[in-house]
Amino acid sequence: MTRSPQIGTTPLLFPTTEPDARLYTSRIAGSKAAALLTLSGMGAPVPPGFVLPTALMGAQACSDGQMPVALAAALAEGLKSLESQGGRRLGDPNDPLLVSLRFSSPIALPWTPRTVLNLGLTPAGVPALARRLGDPAAAWNALARLVRGHARQVMELSEEGFDELQEAALEREGVESPHELSPPAIEALTKGYLELYQQLAGRPLPDQPLEQIHSATLAFLRFWNSPVCSDYRWEHGLDDTEGPALIVQSTVYGTGPKASGTGRMVTRMPSTGEKKPHGQYLPQAQGPDLTAGIRMTEPIGALKSHSPEAYGSLLEWGKTLEQKYRDAVELRFTVENGALWLLDCRPAQRTPKASLRMALDLHGEGICDEARALTLVQPLVVEEYMHPVLDTSTSPPLLTKGLPASPGSAVGQVVFFAEHAVELAARGIKTILVRHETTPEDIDGLKVAEGIITMHGGLTSHAAVVARGMGKCCIVSASEITINYLINEMTVGERTVNKQDWISMNGTSGEIYLGQLPQVQPPLNDDLATVLEWADKHRTLGVYANADTPVDASKAVEMGAGGIGLCRTEHMFFPIDRIPAFRKMILANNKTSRTAALAELMPLQRKDFLELFRVMQGRPVTIRLLDPPLNEFLPRGIRSQSRMAKAMGIPVEEVQKRTEHLTENNPMMGHRGCRLAVTYPEIYAMQVRAIVEAACIVKKEGVDVKPEIMVPLVSTPGELRLLRQEIQTLIDQVFIELGETVGIRIGTMIETPRAAMNSRAIAHWADFYSFGTNDLTQMGYGFSRDDAGMFLPTYLEKGILKEDPFVQLDQHGIGHMVQIAVTEGRKGNTGLKIGICGEHGGDPESVKFCHRLGLDYVSCSPFRIPVARLAAGQAAVAQRESAHD
Amino acid sequence: MTRSPQIGTTPLLFPTTEPDARLYTSRIAGSKAAALLTLSGMGAPVPPGFVLPTALMGAQACSDGQMPVALAAALAEGLKSLESQGGRRLGDPNDPLLVSLRFSSPIALPWTPRTVLNLGLTPAGVPALARRLGDPAAAWNALARLVRGHARQVMELSEEGFDELQEAALEREGVESPHELSPPAIEALTKGYLELYQQLAGRPLPDQPLEQIHSATLAFLRFWNSPVCSDYRWEHGLDDTEGPALIVQSTVYGTGPKASGTGRMVTRMPSTGEKKPHGQYLPQAQGPDLTAGIRMTEPIGALKSHSPEAYGSLLEWGKTLEQKYRDAVELRFTVENGALWLLDCRPAQRTPKASLRMALDLHGEGICDEARALTLVQPLVVEEYMHPVLDTSTSPPLLTKGLPASPGSAVGQVVFFAEHAVELAARGIKTILVRHETTPEDIDGLKVAEGIITMHGGLTSHAAVVARGMGKCCIVSASEITINYLINEMTVGERTVNKQDWISMNGTSGEIYLGQLPQVQPPLNDDLATVLEWADKHRTLGVYANADTPVDASKAVEMGAGGIGLCRTEHMFFPIDRIPAFRKMILANNKTSRTAALAELMPLQRKDFLELFRVMQGRPVTIRLLDPPLNEFLPRGIRSQSRMAKAMGIPVEEVQKRTEHLTENNPMMGHRGCRLAVTYPEIYAMQVRAIVEAACIVKKEGVDVKPEIMVPLVSTPGELRLLRQEIQTLIDQVFIELGETVGIRIGTMIETPRAAMNSRAIAHWADFYSFGTNDLTQMGYGFSRDDAGMFLPTYLEKGILKEDPFVQLDQHGIGHMVQIAVTEGRKGNTGLKIGICGEHGGDPESVKFCHRLGLDYVSCSPFRIPVARLAAGQAAVAQRESAHD
Repeated sequence: MTRSPQIGTTPLLFPTTEPDARLYTSRIAGSKAAALLTLSGMGAPVPPGFVLPTALMGAQACSDGQMPVALAAALAEGLKSLESQGGRRLGDPNDPLLVSLRFSSPIALPWTPRTVLNLGLTPAGVPALARRLGDPAAAWNALARLVRGHARQVMELSEEGFDELQEAALEREGVESPHELSPPAIEALTKGYLELYQQLAGRPLPDQPLEQIHSATLAFLRFWNSPVCSDYRWEHGLDDTEGPALIVQSTVYGTGPKASGTGRMVTRMPSTGEKKPHGQYLPQAQGPDLTAGIRMTEPIGALKSHSPEAYGSLLEWGKTLEQKYRDAVELRFTVENGALWLLDCRPAQRTPKASLRMALDLHGEGICDEARALTLVQPLVVEEYMHPVLDTSTSPPLLTKGLPASPGSAVGQVVFFAEHAVELAARGIKTILVRHETTPEDIDGLKVAEGIITMHGGLTSHAAVVARGMGKCCIVSASEITINYLINEMTVGERTVNKQDWISMNGTSGEIYLGQLPQVQPPLNDDLATVLEWADKHRTLGVYANADTPVDASKAVEMGAGGIGLCRTEHMFFPIDRIPAFRKMILANNKTSRTAALAELMPLQRKDFLELFRVMQGRPVTIRLLDPPLNEFLPRGIRSQSRMAKAMGIPVEEVQKRTEHLTENNPMMGHRGCRLAVTYPEIYAMQVRAIVEAACIVKKEGVDVKPEIMVPLVSTPGELRLLRQEIQTLIDQVFIELGETVGIRIGTMIETPRAAMNSRAIAHWADFYSFGTNDLTQMGYGFSRDDAGMFLPTYLEKGILKEDPFVQLDQHGIGHMVQIAVTEGRKGNTGLKIGICGEHGGDPESVKFCHRLGLDYVSCSPFRIPVARLAAGQAAVAQRESAHD
Repeated sequence: MTRSPQIGTTPLLFPTTEPDARLYTSRIAGSKAAALLTLSGMGAPVPPGFVLPTALMGAQACSDGQMPVALAAALAEGLKSLESQGGRRLGDPNDPLLVSLRFSSPIALPWTPRTVLNLGLTPAGVPALARRLGDPAAAWNALARLVRGHARQVMELSEEGFDELQEAALEREGVESPHELSPPAIEALTKGYLELYQQLAGRPLPDQPLEQIHSATLAFLRFWNSPVCSDYRWEHGLDDTEGPALIVQSTVYGTGPKASGTGRMVTRMPSTGEKKPHGQYLPQAQGPDLTAGIRMTEPIGALKSHSPEAYGSLLEWGKTLEQKYRDAVELRFTVENGALWLLDCRPAQRTPKASLRMALDLHGEGICDEARALTLVQPLVVEEYMHPVLDTSTSPPLLTKGLPASPGSAVGQVVFFAEHAVELAARGIKTILVRHETTPEDIDGLKVAEGIITMHGGLTSHAAVVARGMGKCCIVSASEITINYLINEMTVGERTVNKQDWISMNGTSGEIYLGQLPQVQPPLNDDLATVLEWADKHRTLGVYANADTPVDASKAVEMGAGGIGLCRTEHMFFPIDRIPAFRKMILANNKTSRTAALAELMPLQRKDFLELFRVMQGRPVTIRLLDPPLNEFLPRGIRSQSRMAKAMGIPVEEVQKRTEHLTENNPMMGHRGCRLAVTYPEIYAMQVRAIVEAACIVKKEGVDVKPEIMVPLVSTPGELRLLRQEIQTLIDQVFIELGETVGIRIGTMIETPRAAMNSRAIAHWADFYSFGTNDLTQMGYGFSRDDAGMFLPTYLEKGILKEDPFVQLDQHGIGHMVQIAVTEGRKGNTGLKIGICGEHGGDPESVKFCHRLGLDYVSCSPFRIPVARLAAGQAAVAQRESAHD
């Protein structure tokens, strides 16, 4: 898209006889103005006005707080056209032109400044406006709005004093809202506002219309240049030459005595998606009254009786605009003396479930095609339909409720201490951890518990953040609970719950039940099934599963997984019949005894892979070799250590000494991943042998098998070069031994920032990459996930972070690394297969980002596969559509 | 540089009548061939030959192990020219053309394949060669060389069998070296070689000259495609179209009976730099004999008597080439029947001290200018002249010696356990830690000890790696020491040294002395002073110091620091009179008591800065606000905790609870740096107040003051935005309180990878950046420095890493991040001042890299300032010179 020089500096007038759709983009006009220009171009009744485009109001031009010359000139030009078009003149005491000023941002901001109404009005102009509206009260009201709007938006004065004046006036007349005030009372109140303005601002309200407009314009620019807003625009890659757009529009009045009013209508029900107009209408009101909450609004149907013609026209425009935007829309409007004016058009808000209904209906009605309908479905709807839910068909008694902090359901025995959760988990017992609040010390308990409940804390508390990160069900602020830690019990009102009593929780609703409720997987909703089919048809991104066991793998296939993107082999060593051999391996102080201990484990490992390959037949299975530090496998606490020493027939001191030796200051960045293999090659050798033997055996059974061996935690090409050679040699050897060959890829996880930066060299040794974005996020930010609970909630609270980067992939920093690694990696090896594993693989925004980066697949937990499929389909459609623009 | 198409595929013949200096570059011809072409272009006596340029031998072209067509054609063309030029023909039984094949790499490799000599010779050609050389033995010897060279280089056969045959032959004749064998014996031996070759290779030595040459060529290409070599070329940014160059050169014989021989000469003494030719000569020998170590060489002067004319010519060429290269050179040559042939010319090797002498002499003699001379000085010479050394003027008795693992000197009381080092350090006593070996558990002891001595371990052992990283004196492999840990003593022979006895160590020589020797700072060497002056004149990079105290700051100024680049404020809280207040702050469980504790510390902090500003007058002082996790300040161990509880009047359980609460899984990535300030704003508030008050006070005294406030561990723009606002507000407030203003910069350390990747947005809030490359390296690699001892030595041993990345900045990964951060940061803020602090700031290679990235300054410990100044000067000259190329 090239921008002609005029577009940069010329006001865009509307209505215009020569609509130029090229200008109706957010980049040039901001999103609000783009919609307004489109409406106007379609011939909709839009109050005349003009747009000052974004290029006029770059931050640099305005950094000194002065009115930029080009901006002033464009404003003057626009206002002049507006005057000649409508016949009214700014400041004309007999019939003044009044305008509103609206902010139109080219990017999504956390909030935008409110519209300033009735600019151009002065006390001298009130009589003329009263004549025009046929109502002196409405005219004084208009001035009151301007004074308060200017005080708040431009002068940044406190509203408190104004509110007090208004309260007093309402009380005096015994009415509820300013528009019910008698004309003398509203006149007196407005004059009181003017005095207070002068008192607080140290100067009166500007009595020159142009000065009013200029000062309001500069206030919008000040906002644009504020630190928080600057952060947003820089993050969105806008440079300082790009500003917001402004809409200057002549005011229309819904405040007049005849059929006048203001309202908003959505074309379909936001709650259900049903095709039925819905909205609010407020007679005798101006736009902001609708949301101020002071006056009771009426349902949109009220407009029908108030002004049937305007209502009919509104419905017509609703239909037309649904066709135009291929979506349900929300319209804001004002009716002035029976005439409908459209003020804004935007996509209708909707719940996730309504989004599904709307998408299918719009498609069914022929308003949009399948691809468009696909993009209208909110991914959250998948979660709502897919999470295993508690079976409450027996109407079990509700124990209490809290805030739903992390969705899903969980059933387990209550424990009040993280240690108890760990102890019971070791015995295979499912637990729910209940605490006042959780702290980083509780991390081991959080890891093993099925669900987490806290009495205190909000949605950004430690428990909530950690649980969401782990994809674990969590309820916070369950304030009716009282815990007595001393005697291990909790009470809710009269009820007492003891340690190891069963409870069931619903993290999506915040409900907690006594007892062990059954969990059921909801059947796949038909509508959803249709949409997922569409998604599969359109998507180009593969969706794999993270699965470590045959059970997980079956689930993954059922959910539509195209393969396994991450099989974590360390989980295979934890079972009670294996951990002793693995511990023996760790405690071995020489290669011979280490190799002997590993030989015991090999047949067990091979069995794991045999089963996995049989389940996944024909689909790729990516197996990550051992990753965690060895000391994670050793027992903590003297009792467990003694047990282990006894079992192994060695002194407990030996166990302690070795454990201590393996203890690290920063285990996350310590002796783990491929570093273990560099120092102890025999560990990976055992694992590779198990994989290759299993693959050959399964192939002989006639099962297609595609193992992919993944080396974790690489940070240099040298590591992968060395390990790849060792792995390849061993593969060739097993092939000869078993007289069979299988195609096996050897690749690596990219999870250290350095690996991402040195990707081109590393790619020479890799058949595939899988981004371990969990670790990449930890190391990139320098945030230890286990410790971030100490500050991450504060970061989210203070707005330093907008999202928890462990939930949604940070595109500006970590994503930038991923992007470099993809580009450079494909330079080093054009055939490189690239995916992502880790929590982010199931987050819709992150999935879309992966699609844009050109990844081959995402891998996520089996339950998140449908949401990933949907997001992948949407991303493919969005990319194709933006290519057409 | 553009390359014409012919250059890519045409052999470069020499000697040539039309020398084209554009081709004499490493990129086109490899470094060896570039030198040879230059020699030839100058008219030097170079045996005729040709170079196959790098573009002919890309890896891709040769990946199938077959001879590429273009390469075969170029070889044929070159050989044809060689035949027509010299009159001899390949394979001619009456006078065969023999050639050597030499590898000429465009990049520095860890090793290169040896030259293959006498290609083109077959048993049938021996009589003719014997006639030409006038010596049948020499001719058989030539064939023997070919057989062994071909067996080793091309067929990759073991040398063992050949060695055995040779041993047997020498024994039979009772001589020492093959060239003394009688003609029949050497003939028999050569025939034995041929048989063994056939036996091992399964085929005879190729009897077609062209086949010999082709197979040798392919062997060189195999080497180029080997994994390790591939890693090097990829890291150097060569793509697969760029290969090595090959030199094909007709053989000259130093083996003939007349005045013949081979040798090498350097124009100046490598040990001292003295202007005096030096080298070795070996009569009746061919090139490789010189380094084989089998025959005793004679000093170069021997050539004078052997062939005065050749000697004179050699000296002349030495002079001419010194002028050409503006440096001392090493020449390799062969004399055939009195005629001198030059085979190679390269920069002369030299010790660091010799490099200084040569640089000053070459400049003094007018051979090079100051800038060139500056680049010839090896930065290591600065260390040799600058480290504080032990005063051994009293001739103290040497206790023992070990391997010098980390330079410098140290004096302290012996301890054998890390805990003892920590305990004594807490009492202000200097210690030297002596251990069998160190492990990661010893890290706290390593941090506080003055020096480290181990009985075992090499230069890449844990102790060595860690000590060099810390810039701490270290000696390893002091194997005469025996430690008895039980009774805390060590013995060396008869001598016994007890715990807390004084010893002194020299990490540069490996010497260990009994007693407390004085340490002296050597006076600045005059030559070095001259060179440093040159460096300062040329360098554009500022050199600042890392200094926390006024004493360090004075030292830094004395060493030539342009400012303080890193003042770590945490060190200011450790002194015995301050730590209680700081601990009170940490133990406070609410803001009020935290603020009260901080108020006690404020005057002390202010005093620190007052003194620092007075010392540094006018120079920038960069102060880093509190960085480490709070629990680093709390006592460990129950005894210290009890002491603390008593002193503070609180139960010891309270101390333990809080300590435990602050304990983190990965403290390096935990609650530290600016994260502390986000959660506890009052800490930085105290520090900022102290800085600003001190600055105002000093300014009132008439001292110029330039504080720069540095926020550590930023990973997002939001952190710096928030903290900058808080800091700026406080600065303005203090200015009003004190009625003074000072220019204060507010900036940040870039030490998380994400900050580097998001640099453009962060730069908006920063006046300056300082790269914390220690942390950036830790997080980039995911290497915890405290734990890397478990695997880093293995990484260096196995060649996965070429350098310890904590010593030399990794340019390919971490450096790439730094580069992105610099480029993007300057886009976000064109006036951004950028530096680097941390160990790398004093490493010459890293300093040069910083210059190339366009940094404003490097900051290092005071003692490393001179070496940084030198490196910065060299980098500036190198950049200027390469711009002229």
